[in-house]
Amino acid sequence: MLAAEYIGNKSFQVVEGTKVEPKAGEVCLKVGYVGICGTDMHIYHGVMDARVAPPKTTGHEMSGTVVAIGEGVEGFAIGENVVVRPLDWCGDCPACNAGNTHICHNLKFMGIDSAGAFQNYWTVKSRTLHKIPAGVSLQEGALIEPLSVATHDVSRSRLKAGEKAVVLGGGPIGQLVAAVAKSVGAEVLVSEPNENRRAFAEKMGVKTVNPIDEDLAAVVDEWTGTAGADVVFEVSGVKPAIDAMTEIAAVRGRIVMVAIHSTKPEIDLFKFFWKELELLGARVYEAADYDWAIELVAEKKIDLAPFISSVTELGDIQGAFEGMDGNPEGMKALVKCTDEA
Amino acid sequence: MLAAEYIGNKSFQVVEGTKVEPKAGEVCLKVGYVGICGTDMHIYHGVMDARVAPPKTTGHEMSGTVVAIGEGVEGFAIGENVVVRPLDWCGDCPACNAGNTHICHNLKFMGIDSAGAFQNYWTVKSRTLHKIPAGVSLQEGALIEPLSVATHDVSRSRLKAGEKAVVLGGGPIGQLVAAVAKSVGAEVLVSEPNENRRAFAEKMGVKTVNPIDEDLAAVVDEWTGTAGADVVFEVSGVKPAIDAMTEIAAVRGRIVMVAIHSTKPEIDLFKFFWKELELLGARVYEAADYDWAIELVAEKKIDLAPFISSVTELGDIQGAFEGMDGNPEGMKALVKCTDEA
Repeated sequence: MLAAEYIGNKSFQVVEGTKVEPKAGEVCLKVGYVGICGTDMHIYHGVMDARVAPPKTTGHEMSGTVVAIGEGVEGFAIGENVVVRPLDWCGDCPACNAGNTHICHNLKFMGIDSAGAFQNYWTVKSRTLHKIPAGVSLQEGALIEPLSVATHDVSRSRLKAGEKAVVLGGGPIGQLVAAVAKSVGAEVLVSEPNENRRAFAEKMGVKTVNPIDEDLAAVVDEWTGTAGADVVFEVSGVKPAIDAMTEIAAVRGRIVMVAIHSTKPEIDLFKFFWKELELLGARVYEAADYDWAIELVAEKKIDLAPFISSVTELGDIQGAFEGMDGNPEGMKALVKCTDEA
Repeated sequence: MLAAEYIGNKSFQVVEGTKVEPKAGEVCLKVGYVGICGTDMHIYHGVMDARVAPPKTTGHEMSGTVVAIGEGVEGFAIGENVVVRPLDWCGDCPACNAGNTHICHNLKFMGIDSAGAFQNYWTVKSRTLHKIPAGVSLQEGALIEPLSVATHDVSRSRLKAGEKAVVLGGGPIGQLVAAVAKSVGAEVLVSEPNENRRAFAEKMGVKTVNPIDEDLAAVVDEWTGTAGADVVFEVSGVKPAIDAMTEIAAVRGRIVMVAIHSTKPEIDLFKFFWKELELLGARVYEAADYDWAIELVAEKKIDLAPFISSVTELGDIQGAFEGMDGNPEGMKALVKCTDEA
């Protein structure tokens, strides 16, 4: 079997890997497709080398098929298609004890802190698996992980039908958040400087604004009849969005912090007081977010096909990463990991 | 009748005022006691002159007795003791239409934007009134307004019995927040550098820490068995508290922003993401917060007597303000406005 390994310095090598026999509680998957995530790009750029410790097989947005089942695993059968929720929690910290395993104090992220899915076979704990029904393809399955980020974000926001939501940033996650927000019956506005990303959103039936050319606050004011946005999703990670989010939110508006701001930006706390705003951090996903994401795709409420920009064979994973690097138009590049032999 | 007027430059004059006949929907109150609020001190220091437009009768933390009732007012009788919720909302903006009259887009604050209670008689809209029962004195009544700030803050936090809450700042509002938090069955820790304020909290049966001498994060870590605080109330308005609040909050911890930060402080947004924190702005109070505050005092769940530092006659209001100026030990100075003649 083949396994891709990130070896540092924007480089992968494809090597003969090891198909790991599932131990008790584990399942071996024949990997279908694996998406390239923003985090995978960060790893590729070398900024996470200390944590990743190359050489390492990365990749965590995946779909696959059960090929071997370890002792004590119930509820799964050989041949079933599944996706992995790539979280490894300790089960015994204050967060886990409170039922928040996805923000476990000792959380390990599979594909970063341990081996990932850019290989023909991946052996994982069965507690990470969600089945995908017959109507959902393995290509679509590889997008369930990022879609679950979006369902988690929308779930955190308590967005309701009829409310108005602004998504700051129209990258893959922003677009998926917009799609999920639309699916709950909310009206959605995506703020995004890139023309192609705006066109992508418009094709999904979502209103857009270019915050460089237009006055976003004025647009939101007019769109909402001066009420402001019920929910703002900050997905861009840029400073102007930090200023905009408090400006455009309605009184009692909810702002969901999806982007990772590693600096400490200056925030208009006065507006939090004045408008009784709410800021909600959102990190990865919970089991229910996966269930919701799978349901949205199975019931054709969200069409993931337009999100797939390219499909590359595992043997050319280097090319797939090079093609995504600095390419704002690409939504989701998939790596086909199926062992056809 | 006498009325005190703030005339600018840390000065009051006591003048012959006008007892205003209540119009339709209004009630005339014989004022009992009026507390001096932090905002009253800001006004006294001249920093709000543009908004206040002196000369003006200020004061809004008050109790009184109904002496005249305007046309169409139902549910109130001459001689009843009441307190005023000093908010004047428009009733026709997106916030009011959503039921959030306390954060009305056009909110006027009585005693700042219009005449206040530092006078013998005050005529107000009946919709601002809450009755106080026989067991609650007029002196206690004057503290219902700040106590309602505290019930509002605790209500926003969704604090539950058995949870652990940290209050950053042990001034009057911080102490009242601590008292309300304790009344719901939470464990409370007040972080406050001033020794006398810590002693005040300790007397109320609340644990304290001096964040200058001790490592607050380490104290909270030990107190919560590394879980962190379920709720953090930021009542101090100082920069170190902004750093502390994200540090000491548990995963999914709620941070209530009570203090007014007029600058834009740098905030650790990464921790919002990492721990899925929640930041909740809190402004003034709603009718239900008044009802809760009155109930807490009527049922002797909170003793307001220790909060009353001094009682000064209206004629010496200048002395009352001078006594509170730069006095961190004083909790609540009351001005006795009763017309004894």
